[in-house]
Amino acid sequence: MKICKFGGSSVSSAEQIKKILNIVNQDLDRNIIIVSAPGKRNDKDTKVTDLLIQIYQAVMAGRDYSSQLEAVIERFEEIAEELNLRYSIKHQIRAELTHIIASLRDRPLYLLDALKSCGENFNAQLIAQFNVEQGVPTRYLSPLDIGLMVTDQPGNAMILPDSYETIRERLSSYHEKIIVPGFFGYSEAKEIITFSRGGSDLTGAIISRAMNAELYENFTDVSGIYSASPMIIRQPKKIDELTYDEMRELSYAGFKVFHDEAVAPLIHTGIPVVIKNTNDPAAPGTRIVSAHASTGVVGVSCDTGFTSINMKKYLMNREIGFTRKLLTILEEMQLSYDHMPSGIDNISIVLRSHQLTGKLTALISRIQQELSVDEIDVEEDLAILMIVGEGMKTAVGTANKATAALSRQQVNLKMINQGSSEISMMFGLDANQAETAVKAVYEAFFH
Amino acid sequence: MKICKFGGSSVSSAEQIKKILNIVNQDLDRNIIIVSAPGKRNDKDTKVTDLLIQIYQAVMAGRDYSSQLEAVIERFEEIAEELNLRYSIKHQIRAELTHIIASLRDRPLYLLDALKSCGENFNAQLIAQFNVEQGVPTRYLSPLDIGLMVTDQPGNAMILPDSYETIRERLSSYHEKIIVPGFFGYSEAKEIITFSRGGSDLTGAIISRAMNAELYENFTDVSGIYSASPMIIRQPKKIDELTYDEMRELSYAGFKVFHDEAVAPLIHTGIPVVIKNTNDPAAPGTRIVSAHASTGVVGVSCDTGFTSINMKKYLMNREIGFTRKLLTILEEMQLSYDHMPSGIDNISIVLRSHQLTGKLTALISRIQQELSVDEIDVEEDLAILMIVGEGMKTAVGTANKATAALSRQQVNLKMINQGSSEISMMFGLDANQAETAVKAVYEAFFH
Repeated sequence: MKICKFGGSSVSSAEQIKKILNIVNQDLDRNIIIVSAPGKRNDKDTKVTDLLIQIYQAVMAGRDYSSQLEAVIERFEEIAEELNLRYSIKHQIRAELTHIIASLRDRPLYLLDALKSCGENFNAQLIAQFNVEQGVPTRYLSPLDIGLMVTDQPGNAMILPDSYETIRERLSSYHEKIIVPGFFGYSEAKEIITFSRGGSDLTGAIISRAMNAELYENFTDVSGIYSASPMIIRQPKKIDELTYDEMRELSYAGFKVFHDEAVAPLIHTGIPVVIKNTNDPAAPGTRIVSAHASTGVVGVSCDTGFTSINMKKYLMNREIGFTRKLLTILEEMQLSYDHMPSGIDNISIVLRSHQLTGKLTALISRIQQELSVDEIDVEEDLAILMIVGEGMKTAVGTANKATAALSRQQVNLKMINQGSSEISMMFGLDANQAETAVKAVYEAFFH
Repeated sequence: MKICKFGGSSVSSAEQIKKILNIVNQDLDRNIIIVSAPGKRNDKDTKVTDLLIQIYQAVMAGRDYSSQLEAVIERFEEIAEELNLRYSIKHQIRAELTHIIASLRDRPLYLLDALKSCGENFNAQLIAQFNVEQGVPTRYLSPLDIGLMVTDQPGNAMILPDSYETIRERLSSYHEKIIVPGFFGYSEAKEIITFSRGGSDLTGAIISRAMNAELYENFTDVSGIYSASPMIIRQPKKIDELTYDEMRELSYAGFKVFHDEAVAPLIHTGIPVVIKNTNDPAAPGTRIVSAHASTGVVGVSCDTGFTSINMKKYLMNREIGFTRKLLTILEEMQLSYDHMPSGIDNISIVLRSHQLTGKLTALISRIQQELSVDEIDVEEDLAILMIVGEGMKTAVGTANKATAALSRQQVNLKMINQGSSEISMMFGLDANQAETAVKAVYEAFFH
C-alpha cells in the first residue's frame, strides 16, 4: 500500500485535480489519498487557506466578511464547474462556513482552526465526488471518521498516540479509494484542531505509519528536493536520496518542500518517503529514507529572523542551576529557544525573533533581576545557516571547507555549533550576509 | 599599595623564603603578602599539602599516620633551621595537628579542610617570624583575624560579599608588613573552609579587591604565561598582556599558572594582575588587565578528561521544558556541565569525567526513563581545546585558520562551539589527538 499526499498547487484547479486522480487511479496500490486546500494557480492568486484566515480576521474585527466568504465559495464553485460535477456543493459550503462562524465566534482559537480546515475539507469532498462521477469507487472520510485524534493545541496539534491503532482499524475496512483532508485532526472534545501550517504532510505521515505503508508519496510541484534554495542558487543539484534526519535538519532552516515535523511519525517505521512532481510523475523525485551510505554534505539551508540574547556572568559555571533558571524563565514566558551556545562564563539563547514581539523588554528585565547577570545584550536580524549530511561525522575537514569558503567571502561568523550528532553544522551570521554565505558554501561543497 | 602572592615553589625552602622577603622588603608598597604551603624543592619532593592529605586519608582509614605527621613537622623544622629561627615552631605544629585530628575526626569534610589549611598557615607564621627576626616589622594574620569569611562548602568555598568591607577595615589599621596564609577562609560557624586547590591566588585577589590595590603581583616559578603549554610546544611565545576574560578561558582548559576563579573578585575593579617569577623578579612577566586593544589570538589551551553524553529525540525542540528537565536531573545528581551543544533534535552534555564516577549508570537510566529519549550514547576520553583571544570577534577567518590547521593534521572535530561572546572557540576531540591539535593550532596562529 502506498499513501499519496498532494500539495496545494497539485489540487488548485480542475486540470490539476484530473492529473492527480490519473496518478491515483492508474496504480492499485494508491488507496489512500490526502489532499491539501487549493493553492495558487498563478502568482496573482490567493490560496484558499489565506482567504479563510481573512474571514476569521474580519469576524474578529467585527467587519463585513461577505466578500471573502463569496471568494471561497466561488473558488470551489469554479473548480466544480470545470469538473462538470453533477451535484453542486456551493450551498453546503456556504451553510458550513456560516455555521462555523456562528457557533465558534466566542472562541477565537477554535474558530480560526475550524475555518482553516475548510480548505482541505471541502477540497477532499469535491475530489472524492468527481472520482465517483468518473466511475471509480471512492469515499471521502474526515479525520473524525478515521479517528485522527490530536492534542487540544489550536494551530499546533500533535497526534495522540492511540490514534494509530484506531486509524489502522477503521481504514482497513474499506476497499474503495479513500480521500482524506490533510492538515487537521479532532481533539478529544471533538473540536477541529489544525497542525502547524503545511501540516498536510503530517497527516500523510501519520496515516502511512498507521497503515504500515510500503511508501509515502508526497506530490508537490517540484521534481524533488534541491541541495540549496533555487531562489539563491541557479539550478542547484537535485538530491536523489537523503535520510529522515537530514531532511529534518534542512527543513528546520528554511527548506519548505516537506514539513519540518512530518518525519517524526515515520522515524521508527523505516517507511520511505518520496517527493514527486504532480506535473512530471514519472521523474524519480527525491527519496527520504531511514539510513543510507552517503558520506558527503547533502544540502545547505539558511533561514533568517533569529535573535540572540547574550549573557555574561562571572563564575556562571560555578552557579548550580543557572541555566535551569534561565530556561524556566523562557518556559514561563512561552518562549522556545533553538540554540544555546555557551562559553565558560557566557551563554547565548538563540530564538526565532517573531516570538519576542512584545516580550523582549520583559524577558531582559527578568533575566537581569532573577539571574543577576553582569552583561546582557541582544543581537537581532541573525541568520542560521545549516550544512547537513550524515557523512560529516566521518569526514575530516568539513568544518574547514565551510569556514574557508565563508571567510573568503568575508562572512563574519557570530556563532558556530556542531554537536556530537555531527549530522549538521550550524553557523550564525548577519542576515544580510545570508545569501553570500549560502552561495559560498554551496560552491565549496557542490562544485 | 601592591598585594603580593607567592606560590608553593617560591616558599618551598629557606633560600626561596629569603628571596621573597627581599622582594617584599625592598618595596614600601608591598605591604600585604599572601603565601602558599611549601611546594616541591625538586622532582622527588612531596608538597606539604599532599602530606597533609595523606594524614587525612590515614586517619579516615584508621591507619597509623605518625610517619606523615613527622614528615610535615620535619619539613617545617628544616626550613626553620636553615633560616636560623630563634624560636622553634615544632611543638606548636605538632600540637595543632593533633588537636585538629582529635576534634574533627568525626566530621571528615571539615577535618580535610582544616588539615589542608595547615601548610599555608604554618608557613605564613614561620615567614612572618623570620622577617621580624631580620628586623622588619611584620605581623602574621589569619583569615579569621582579617575577616575573610566564606560559604560553608568544604573544599570549594566562595567568598561572602560582606567580607570585603571587613577585610578593608581590619587591614587598614596595621602599618607593618602583613603575612596572610592563602587558600582558606572561615565559615560563619568559624570552621576552616578551603577554596578549591590552588586557591591562594583567590585569597590574593580577594584582598586586592578589599584594599583596592593598585596592583596584584602573583609570584610563581615562571616568567609569565605562555601562549601554549611548554610541555607540548618547545619555547612557546610568552604573553605580555591578556585580559581577565582571556585568562579565565585559558585557565579553564588547562592553564594552571593562575587559578581559574581568581579573576572573579577583580572583574569590576580593573585592578591589574601581574604574573612574575620569584627567581627573576626584574623580568616584566605577564600582565592581566580588564581590557586591551589586542586583536589576535593570545593562547591555546587543551584539557583532557571530558565525557560527552549525547541524546537524540524526535521533536525535542517542540517539547517545552526538555532541556530544563535534563538540567534538573544533573542538578539533583550534583553534576555540573561544561558545555551543551545542541542540534535540532539532539543535545550533548559535556562534563568532566571524574564527576561521573559511580554515577554514570544512574544518570543514563534517569535520562532514559524521565525524558524518553530515542537514543543515548556516551563518549569518553574527550579533550577540549580552547583558542582564546578578545580580537577574534572582529577577525574574519579565525575559525577557518583553526579548522584548516586541525584538518591538515587529520584531527577529527567532534564538537565545535563558538558563542556570541566570540572571545573563544571550543573544539571537542579525542584525547589522544590533543597534543597534535595543540601543535597544529599553535603553529597556525603563532608562526
